[in-house]
Amino acid sequence: MFSADRLDLVRSATAASGAGALLLTPGPDLRYVSGYDAHALERLTCLVVPGDGGDPFMMVPRLELPAAQASPAGRLGVEFVPWDETDDPYAVVAHRLGEVGSVALADRMWAMQSLRFRDALPGAEQRLASSVLRDLRMRKSAAEAAALAEAGAAIDAVHALVPSLLKAGRTEREVGRDIADAILSAGHVTIDFVIVASGPNGASPHHDVSDRVIRAGEPVVVDIGGTMASGYCSDSTRNYCVGEPPADYARYFEVLRAAQDAACEAVRPGVTCESIDAAAREVIAAAGYGELFVHRTGHGIGLESHEDPYIVAGNDELLVPGMAFSVEPGIYLPGEHGARIEDIVVCTEEGVSRLNNTTRDLVIV
Amino acid sequence: MFSADRLDLVRSATAASGAGALLLTPGPDLRYVSGYDAHALERLTCLVVPGDGGDPFMMVPRLELPAAQASPAGRLGVEFVPWDETDDPYAVVAHRLGEVGSVALADRMWAMQSLRFRDALPGAEQRLASSVLRDLRMRKSAAEAAALAEAGAAIDAVHALVPSLLKAGRTEREVGRDIADAILSAGHVTIDFVIVASGPNGASPHHDVSDRVIRAGEPVVVDIGGTMASGYCSDSTRNYCVGEPPADYARYFEVLRAAQDAACEAVRPGVTCESIDAAAREVIAAAGYGELFVHRTGHGIGLESHEDPYIVAGNDELLVPGMAFSVEPGIYLPGEHGARIEDIVVCTEEGVSRLNNTTRDLVIV
Repeated sequence: MFSADRLDLVRSATAASGAGALLLTPGPDLRYVSGYDAHALERLTCLVVPGDGGDPFMMVPRLELPAAQASPAGRLGVEFVPWDETDDPYAVVAHRLGEVGSVALADRMWAMQSLRFRDALPGAEQRLASSVLRDLRMRKSAAEAAALAEAGAAIDAVHALVPSLLKAGRTEREVGRDIADAILSAGHVTIDFVIVASGPNGASPHHDVSDRVIRAGEPVVVDIGGTMASGYCSDSTRNYCVGEPPADYARYFEVLRAAQDAACEAVRPGVTCESIDAAAREVIAAAGYGELFVHRTGHGIGLESHEDPYIVAGNDELLVPGMAFSVEPGIYLPGEHGARIEDIVVCTEEGVSRLNNTTRDLVIV
Repeated sequence: MFSADRLDLVRSATAASGAGALLLTPGPDLRYVSGYDAHALERLTCLVVPGDGGDPFMMVPRLELPAAQASPAGRLGVEFVPWDETDDPYAVVAHRLGEVGSVALADRMWAMQSLRFRDALPGAEQRLASSVLRDLRMRKSAAEAAALAEAGAAIDAVHALVPSLLKAGRTEREVGRDIADAILSAGHVTIDFVIVASGPNGASPHHDVSDRVIRAGEPVVVDIGGTMASGYCSDSTRNYCVGEPPADYARYFEVLRAAQDAACEAVRPGVTCESIDAAAREVIAAAGYGELFVHRTGHGIGLESHEDPYIVAGNDELLVPGMAFSVEPGIYLPGEHGARIEDIVVCTEEGVSRLNNTTRDLVIV
């Protein structure tokens, strides 16, 4: 997936953006461009892509040179510039770049690095790497879409196990630990999040787990995701109930089910991101639950579990084939319970492709 | 460990530093000050500590308000300011702060956030939160030292298992997978790194694992660490050999063993960080291996696996009781093999306390 071709696209995009250079420290931007999944630490690792057509190079702490050379970045033909413990690698970058009017920083570059670059390159206005990479990263290639589909199948396999793990009398934390093990067994290399939100905790969209004991008759929101060896992420939410759910929950769950379908069916090239949000929101508002849907409908996904494009009011970006994002409306009754249904979808020429395919109905366990 | 007392110390340190405000997004700085282990994502979560004595407040995405309230931060008496999906939380912070001459940013704040703060507070010079928090975070309290000791005992338990996992014919990756499981079983909540570097890979200090098959007569460097539920990290390196090691390796290993002891014995209040580095380096250089010790001697450890103080030439910071750091000299023969011995130590009034206590000798398996 990582090749000199992609680097060539990035070099062109950097030049076209007008940025003097792209500066990528460890994180998803660096991994996207070079394939190097470097551990983010205080010593500077940084791929520098000059905007004037000059050759890219990578600053690497000398003790990590063998690891960098052994990574996919070692096959890109990029010069590695090792630095020693008492060198100033920021000064080396500044010296090599000369006078530049601006630099585009990895969106997740740490302040401890961005402020050093500010001081080493005082004449360069700092902007974000997404101003260069956003369009490339948003439009997933066939290989990237396949990697997301593989991640989707892996998290689906975990949801298929959840009914056997959820039992009245177990705590959220106990169930969550078993789910975490299953996320790894299903082929992920990291567990990104495990939300097991029972009863009133279901009304907290970003709850994780607690020592609360799950009781009969309680709905449980299970929102889980991890990262595959490819670097691509999974994220899917399903809803379970230990026995029959409360009547008011069953009523709004049907509304939510219809809203999530409506949003997925609205996905096609040429419509805006906010129109997908509106498609879900209109169904929920029409049923009188609008005030209880307290978050946006979705987020892009790829090498990050949250990335562009965001499916939110005010985002008039047009969908194009290859965009991948979550569709995850929710309804939350504070103090009572809540529900959220989430699939990762890819926009295709034909419309929508859903990457999560376990049942979206309430699962009674 | 997280209390209103600590927040009071941070408020005083912010005022004393002259910073207009401390701005802490999710990461170790926020966790140190508030105990809130928030997931780092694109929506702004930010603890704001004004430098003028005004009350601290925390910006929180509305959907994470219940999670923030349920965290230790919910018991600090800090005002939570929830924001909705289409609000601009940076503008809210700027409005509440008014005119400030500078702001101190969490050292790991992402550029996507620091550049938004730059634009929202154009008159405020940005500096690092470490300029405010460094002294507090470097001097571990008794409770923090105990948490590091607990982490040290946990990783020692993993090293005690390594001889049963290392066998000729297994790959580094297979051994690494078993070690990763053992890191979690020993009480860590995350696996931070697993280096299993056999034969020539031992000469790459930041190698991780590979599909290389471990063979008889090969030395293996095992450098492992994780994070406990407390947030505090472990990190320890030991050396193993499947059968008898090569004669040249055995010779320099004894030098390394003496160098690591010399550096640990040099630890006491009032000496410089660089003197600890020099204590190890002199032993290695005197034996003729100076060129093969290619990295600094150590790094601080706490809520981060690498943090201040760094044990490196040029760092004339004086050790004080409570400082915790690694002592990890290494000797590396490119293409052949390498060795590194690493303990976490705490500087005490009496001298040094070592938190890793498995044998530092070469372990023949």
